[in-house]
Amino acid sequence: MSQKLRVGVLGARGKVGREVCRAVEGAPDTELVAQVDAGDDIEELVRAGVEAVVDFTHPDVVMDNLRFCIEHGIHAVVGTTGFDDDRLEQLRGWLGDEPRAGVLIAPNFSIGAILMMHFAARAAPFFESAEIVELHHPDKADAPSGTARRTAALIAAARRDAGMGTMPDATSTVLDGARGADVDGVRVHGLRIRGLVAHQEVVLGGVGETLTIRHDSLDRASFTPGVLTGLRAITDHPGLTVGLENFLDLG
Amino acid sequence: MSQKLRVGVLGARGKVGREVCRAVEGAPDTELVAQVDAGDDIEELVRAGVEAVVDFTHPDVVMDNLRFCIEHGIHAVVGTTGFDDDRLEQLRGWLGDEPRAGVLIAPNFSIGAILMMHFAARAAPFFESAEIVELHHPDKADAPSGTARRTAALIAAARRDAGMGTMPDATSTVLDGARGADVDGVRVHGLRIRGLVAHQEVVLGGVGETLTIRHDSLDRASFTPGVLTGLRAITDHPGLTVGLENFLDLG
Amino acid sequence: MSQKLRVGVLGARGKVGREVCRAVEGAPDTELVAQVDAGDDIEELVRAGVEAVVDFTHPDVVMDNLRFCIEHGIHAVVGTTGFDDDRLEQLRGWLGDEPRAGVLIAPNFSIGAILMMHFAARAAPFFESAEIVELHHPDKADAPSGTARRTAALIAAARRDAGMGTMPDATSTVLDGARGADVDGVRVHGLRIRGLVAHQEVVLGGVGETLTIRHDSLDRASFTPGVLTGLRAITDHPGLTVGLENFLDLG
Amino acid sequence: MSQKLRVGVLGARGKVGREVCRAVEGAPDTELVAQVDAGDDIEELVRAGVEAVVDFTHPDVVMDNLRFCIEHGIHAVVGTTGFDDDRLEQLRGWLGDEPRAGVLIAPNFSIGAILMMHFAARAAPFFESAEIVELHHPDKADAPSGTARRTAALIAAARRDAGMGTMPDATSTVLDGARGADVDGVRVHGLRIRGLVAHQEVVLGGVGETLTIRHDSLDRASFTPGVLTGLRAITDHPGLTVGLENFLDLG
Repeated sequence: MSQKLRVGVLGARGKVGREVCRAVEGAPDTELVAQVDAGDDIEELVRAGVEAVVDFTHPDVVMDNLRFCIEHGIHAVVGTTGFDDDRLEQLRGWLGDEPRAGVLIAPNFSIGAILMMHFAARAAPFFESAEIVELHHPDKADAPSGTARRTAALIAAARRDAGMGTMPDATSTVLDGARGADVDGVRVHGLRIRGLVAHQEVVLGGVGETLTIRHDSLDRASFTPGVLTGLRAITDHPGLTVGLENFLDLG
Repeated sequence: MSQKLRVGVLGARGKVGREVCRAVEGAPDTELVAQVDAGDDIEELVRAGVEAVVDFTHPDVVMDNLRFCIEHGIHAVVGTTGFDDDRLEQLRGWLGDEPRAGVLIAPNFSIGAILMMHFAARAAPFFESAEIVELHHPDKADAPSGTARRTAALIAAARRDAGMGTMPDATSTVLDGARGADVDGVRVHGLRIRGLVAHQEVVLGGVGETLTIRHDSLDRASFTPGVLTGLRAITDHPGLTVGLENFLDLG
Repeated sequence: MSQKLRVGVLGARGKVGREVCRAVEGAPDTELVAQVDAGDDIEELVRAGVEAVVDFTHPDVVMDNLRFCIEHGIHAVVGTTGFDDDRLEQLRGWLGDEPRAGVLIAPNFSIGAILMMHFAARAAPFFESAEIVELHHPDKADAPSGTARRTAALIAAARRDAGMGTMPDATSTVLDGARGADVDGVRVHGLRIRGLVAHQEVVLGGVGETLTIRHDSLDRASFTPGVLTGLRAITDHPGLTVGLENFLDLG
Repeated sequence: MSQKLRVGVLGARGKVGREVCRAVEGAPDTELVAQVDAGDDIEELVRAGVEAVVDFTHPDVVMDNLRFCIEHGIHAVVGTTGFDDDRLEQLRGWLGDEPRAGVLIAPNFSIGAILMMHFAARAAPFFESAEIVELHHPDKADAPSGTARRTAALIAAARRDAGMGTMPDATSTVLDGARGADVDGVRVHGLRIRGLVAHQEVVLGGVGETLTIRHDSLDRASFTPGVLTGLRAITDHPGLTVGLENFLDLG
């Protein structure tokens, strides 16, 4: 095996950051050489010879972090939220036309969730009906989940591209809410159940058959394989990439 | 084996009636001796020596059918809909204080669906959360299904009896309909998917665990074992019985 | 819409053939112009101006049918079983270097089943573990099902291509059969349950998450959309094609 | 609310014991007044005025612990394994004819698992077919799981009591292991998948319908509600009780 990738973690003492540190230390091809959190000096990344950082920090500080990394040619795998079009444009400007560093902005590092969304969109044109059931713990603030909304949007786009019309639904007597939320023409149902973590099921159906694609996230650590996948790919992908799916060979 | 029960079918040429005829003919302990439908003479039941009828006809004619059966001491297993309190009271009046005949009025003959509802209600007091997902073909007119509403009512009653409060739900940002319909404090979600028949899942959850009870009806014939169970029990149960669950040993 | 495709059905009076006839008649872009079964004259296909046939007949007669079709430039969509390498080679010989007719040989016309297999193979390299559960009615003669065996082979090949080793399994005390059948290193479990039709679930798992892909075939008619897809594509695909997946845009 | 139950935990510094301590502290009607582990003086239970203990220790020490508790009139809720008939007989002897203390020995404190087993046995007489699928993390040593074996035994007993014969199964061509392990005539299938914790599904089927009862344990803490249920009931149940199901009102 070639030399290990020298990784720094920003937000290293947060709940997620600590999981990232453990994963980077545990993997055979990465090495944890810097842990930085609020109050620490970010120059530590340079002193430690960091090649790539993982950033799970806060929307308030992530742009400063990324400017520093880009200026110093350090690659970045970013799970921090809050990236709108303006921020992405800003990043492209900093990276320039011949970027040395690669920056991956990913709203979701769960490979299972990404595959679920990808397969649901691929399958959508082959089935008359498609609905989404998402199930989470009852302390979640929003319904439906962001993943469910994104899945619905992907299914709706795939159906539009295939020239499909609205889904069959003869419901004439309905109790308010019984048919779920309408996201871009796709029905989404959210359950909140004590004991659950984060789960989603996409049910597609045609004549005489159904196809169900289900993702179960049972532990917070489920995002770490995706972070490692991002780290392994980022050194070969200078410039801005949005979405981990671009680093998975999904055909 | 003792003599076979002599069975007549009312509504024998309807879709459901034909399935009943097949089941009565196929069972080892029942014999199909009369098939009656609109336009036929109901006296045929007497001429054929019918001991018990199965009635899947129409709300407009079922009361006349039942008065005839009760007057002639013929037991009746009834799947026809439309029985309200007035009709049940009328039946009790006809049966009198010392009924010769037994009459079973059942809104649901699927043993699987009955067990699902029974188990859901039994389990409800042990779990903080309980929600219902029902899934049907897209030609169904009402949402949620009648079975889902009944299940929700049973769960709600079981929780009240156990002194339980409302279920935990921190949802603060919600898209209209995303949390389903509220039936007696129990959330119910209805999916309409081509290829499906009739399915329901009850998800219960507590600290670190969930219990899921799912019923799948894959074929219309699924009600016939319940009809046969009704026929076998009705001869020993003179008077009015509402609900097949009374003939199942559910403890 | 352009002119309808003129379709003939071979094995038209069999259980499957009758479903095919219904589907071809029902579709907006196909027309049923010939129905041929044992004892009928196959020349009828020519007299009726058939452009493409669907063949659900028998291994004993299918090769004669196909020679006739190829000689007369009639396309063929074939669900009959029993095609080994010798037979496929024979077909290639008849079709020649500049085939006029297209012949599709497909062991499975269920689009849902094909997608399940395709997605399972695509997902396999991303997860440490993958096992298969297939569930069928109890009158089925073989266990595991052909679809389950094919799925296992596809998963095994995808893992080999990705350089993955054996799956983690610390089982040291095992009751005979408890870990299922070993198909190419993939564990396959077969359930036989009254009431079921044909169902399969592929469970893939990695750190903290699982992805489950399930196909439910609830009605024999589930193969007809695949047959229609085959008919629509075959006129543009002269020569031999093995597997309907080649006509689906799976990326 | 009446006074809180004074609870001591034996094995308090073990992984499970720490969860028990947290649960006892967190519940509104119990109070953690003593924590004892290897090396500590068990007399501490008396000094602290413990009314009931929870024992998750080791087969080597649990009998000494229980003799001490019984002699001092302290109730005990026991999750330690290794209780055979001899040990249970010994406990009955120590408790005597007029026991002051109650002792609950429970192999399983998951209320969800207990309900799954109970419902499966209740439902078994109504369905021709019943099979079990258990799914666990791949570090588990035994297959099938103890819970799956117990569930199979309960289903088999319920079928025998109902006079049912063997399940329908026409399998004639089988790959070794494909039909699972045979536990008392019930087929049991064990999956080992990274990312899973402990899960079990019982699938029952009859004409045209299936009933599926599934238990998912997603977190080790899932046993704590059962321990609290045991503590609340034990003070009213002097003498020996085997199985938490005796304290659940299961009808």
